[in-house]
Amino acid sequence: MPETQAHVVIAGGGFGGISAARALASGAVRVTLLDRHNYHVFQPLLYQVATAGLSPEDIASPIRWMLRHQRNTRVLLAELRSIGPDHGFVRLDEGEMAYDHLVLATGVRHFYFGHDEWEPHAPGLKTLDDALLIRKRFLLAYERAERTADPVERQRLLTFVVVGGGPTGVELAGALAEIARHTLRDEFRSFEAGASRVMLFEAAPNILAMYPPDLQAAAERSLRRLGVELRKNSPVTALGPHELVAGGQRIAAGTILWAAGVAASPVATSLAVPLDRAGRVPVEPDLSVPGHPNVYVIGDLAAFEQDGHELPGVAQVAIQQGRHAADNILRSVEGRARRPFRYRDYGNMATIGRAAAIADLGPLHLSGWPAWVAWLFLHIMKLVGFRNRLAVLLQWAWAYFTYQRSVRLITGTSDEGQGNRV
Amino acid sequence: MPETQAHVVIAGGGFGGISAARALASGAVRVTLLDRHNYHVFQPLLYQVATAGLSPEDIASPIRWMLRHQRNTRVLLAELRSIGPDHGFVRLDEGEMAYDHLVLATGVRHFYFGHDEWEPHAPGLKTLDDALLIRKRFLLAYERAERTADPVERQRLLTFVVVGGGPTGVELAGALAEIARHTLRDEFRSFEAGASRVMLFEAAPNILAMYPPDLQAAAERSLRRLGVELRKNSPVTALGPHELVAGGQRIAAGTILWAAGVAASPVATSLAVPLDRAGRVPVEPDLSVPGHPNVYVIGDLAAFEQDGHELPGVAQVAIQQGRHAADNILRSVEGRARRPFRYRDYGNMATIGRAAAIADLGPLHLSGWPAWVAWLFLHIMKLVGFRNRLAVLLQWAWAYFTYQRSVRLITGTSDEGQGNRV
Repeated sequence: MPETQAHVVIAGGGFGGISAARALASGAVRVTLLDRHNYHVFQPLLYQVATAGLSPEDIASPIRWMLRHQRNTRVLLAELRSIGPDHGFVRLDEGEMAYDHLVLATGVRHFYFGHDEWEPHAPGLKTLDDALLIRKRFLLAYERAERTADPVERQRLLTFVVVGGGPTGVELAGALAEIARHTLRDEFRSFEAGASRVMLFEAAPNILAMYPPDLQAAAERSLRRLGVELRKNSPVTALGPHELVAGGQRIAAGTILWAAGVAASPVATSLAVPLDRAGRVPVEPDLSVPGHPNVYVIGDLAAFEQDGHELPGVAQVAIQQGRHAADNILRSVEGRARRPFRYRDYGNMATIGRAAAIADLGPLHLSGWPAWVAWLFLHIMKLVGFRNRLAVLLQWAWAYFTYQRSVRLITGTSDEGQGNRV
Repeated sequence: MPETQAHVVIAGGGFGGISAARALASGAVRVTLLDRHNYHVFQPLLYQVATAGLSPEDIASPIRWMLRHQRNTRVLLAELRSIGPDHGFVRLDEGEMAYDHLVLATGVRHFYFGHDEWEPHAPGLKTLDDALLIRKRFLLAYERAERTADPVERQRLLTFVVVGGGPTGVELAGALAEIARHTLRDEFRSFEAGASRVMLFEAAPNILAMYPPDLQAAAERSLRRLGVELRKNSPVTALGPHELVAGGQRIAAGTILWAAGVAASPVATSLAVPLDRAGRVPVEPDLSVPGHPNVYVIGDLAAFEQDGHELPGVAQVAIQQGRHAADNILRSVEGRARRPFRYRDYGNMATIGRAAAIADLGPLHLSGWPAWVAWLFLHIMKLVGFRNRLAVLLQWAWAYFTYQRSVRLITGTSDEGQGNRV
C-alpha cells in the first residue's frame, strides 16, 4: 500500500460498504473500512435471529475475514462521529482520519416519529444486538407467563404486538405466530402456548406498500392463516410500558416490537447539506454529495430518485450503489469521467411464517409455497461463506420437519435480567 | 400431577439437576426444576464458545424443551435465594415455594482467593455469559492492537494470560495460541497475528493435578508446541487492569482470564450446616444434608469423600449423583430404605488446541491425536439433541480443514463497548 496512493475511507460494513470495498480490491488506491462492529450482518435474516430461528453467528461474518485477501484494504473497529468541516477528514470515537475519497454507508436506525420515549418499550430491529434484545424479551414474556398466578397478567404477557406492516413487521409477526402455535407446544404447564395473541398494526390502508395488490392480499391471507390479528388503518397514538393505543384501541401487551419507521444515521447532519424528511442525503446522479464531489453516500443513507420514484432501502440498492461509487472513485483517480448510477431491479421477496412467502419478480408474481422455496434458496445462496450457508440450510431443514427453533436462549446481562420488568 | 403427590424441588439445571429431573420422570411425585437461565449448558465445551469456536446455541438447550414430555415436571425461570429456616420452603427472587424434597444443584462460581477485586480484570468461565464476555475481550484486544499506533500498547494488547493450569486453563490457553498462530493470519495490517504471546500461570509444580504424570507431561509438550509460555510454581500475587504479578514476574497483558479457583454458590450458607473450605456442603453417604434428610446436595456444590479422596467437580459425578438422589427420593416416598452413593469413574479427558488431547481411562492413557479423536466423538455424542451434535460436528470439521473459527463476533452492550477499556 504505497502511501502516495489515494486513500479511500469507507464508513459502514453493511451491504453497501462491503460492496464498495470489494470493488476497490484491485484499484490503485489504499482503502480503510470502518465499522463500529467487527462483523457484517446479513440483514434480510435478522428477524430470524430475533425470533430464535437462527444464531447470530449464522448470519454474521467478521469483516476483516471477508476482506483478508485484499492487501490494499485495512479494516478498523471504529465509529464515525462526524465529517470535518473542510471535508478532508472524519472524526472517529478516538482520533481523526484523513481521506481523499469518502464513502458514507452508515445506514439507518429506527424512527419513532418524534416519540423517542417509546424506544425502551418497543425495540426496533436493525442490529444483531437489537435482535438479541428482542429474542430475550419475547422468550422472557413466556417464562414469566408460566410463573405468574394472575390470569390478567398472564394474558398481557402472552400478547405480542408488532407495529408496522412492512417486510420486517410481517416477517416478525409471522414468526411469532408460528412459535406460539407450534414451537412451544407441550412446554408450559400454566397455559397452552396457542393461547397467545399476535397483533400487527399498520397505519396505512395496506401492508407491504412496495408490493403489488395481489401479493399484498396473498400476504394477508398467510398472516391470518397463522392466526395473526391484522389491524390496518391503525396508527399508534400512545405507547408505554406494556401498553399501546393504536387505531383508537387500547391494548395491554407484554412485548411490543417496532418495525414502523427509519431515520438516517445522524452522521449525515455533519455534511452540512440539505437532508430529506427522514434525514437521508439527496445525492447527485453519480452518488456524490452536492458540492462535495469526493464524498459519496450509498445505501439506506442515500436518497436517490429514479423514474420519479425514490429507491427503496433494500440490500440490492446498497450493493449496486457500493459497486458504482467504487467505480466512480477509480474513474476520478484515473482522470476519467464519472458515470451516473442506474438501479436494476431484480425483484423483491418477503416471507410470512412457515412455508409461505411472496415474490415480486417484475411480470412474475409468486406466493405461498413456490415463493417460499425461491426465497429460501436465494437467501441461502447470498449468505457469506460456505459455513453459514450450510448451517442455515441444516437449521431450516431441521425447523421445517420438527417445528423447532433451536436457539431459544435468554442471554446477556444488559437492558434487563430477571428483574421485575419483562 | 395430583396435588397430593410429594413435591420435589430441584434447584439448578446443570448436569446434576437435569439428571435428577429425568430420573424422576415416571415417579409418583410432582417435580419443579428452577434455574436462573432458561437453558442447560454443556459445560465441557464452554471454552469453545469463549474462544469463538462454537456458538452459544451449539452447546446450550432450553431446559423446558429438554423436559417437555415429562408431564409431572414444571420448569421455572427463577433464582434460588435461600432455604427457609424450617427447611420446608425455598425463597426465590420473587416469592417462596414449598417442597417435600429438595435437590440443591446450584454448582460453583470462580473464586479469587479472597481478592474479589480481581474479578473485573480477570473474568472466569462458568456461564454462557462469562464465555461471551471472554470472547468479546480477546477479540477486542486484537481490534485495538490493529488500531493503536503505539508499539508498547500493541504488545500489551497482544499478550494473553490464563491463570490456572486445570483443564479449563489448559483448554483456554491452547485455543488462544491456536487462534494467534493460525486463525487470524492475513487479517491484520499493523502486526503479524503470530506476534501475540499466550502465557499460562500455575501456582502448583504441575498442571492438570488430577491426571497421572505421563499425561501431564504430554499436555505440557502439546502446549509448548502451540507456543504457550507455561510458568509453573507461579502463584499470582497481584492483579490489576491489564497487569499482573505472578511468580515474582510483572506482566503487562491486555487480556487476563481466570481459571484458578472455584467456590460453592452462596446459597449453601443458608442451610446452616458446616461447609468445607470452598463453601461446599459435606453430605451423608445417601447425598442428603446432615440433619436434613429431605434435602440433597449434588454435583459441584457437594463435598463427597470416597476411598479417602474428594470426588472431582466434573460432569460425570454430577450426573451420577443426580440419578442417585432421585432414586433415594423415590425410595423415601415408597417407604423403602435409601442407598449410599458410590461414584464409578469412567475416565477423564482434556484437549489442548488443535488435534491434541489427553485421556486418562484407568489403565489406558492416551495422548496426542488418538486422545483427541476420542475426546471429539465422546463430546459430540454427549451433546443434547441431534441438531447440536450435527452443528458441532460440522463446525469442527470446518475448523479442522480451514483453521477458521467462524463465530468471531463482538456482541453485547454490557460490561464494555468500544470505550476506552479493552
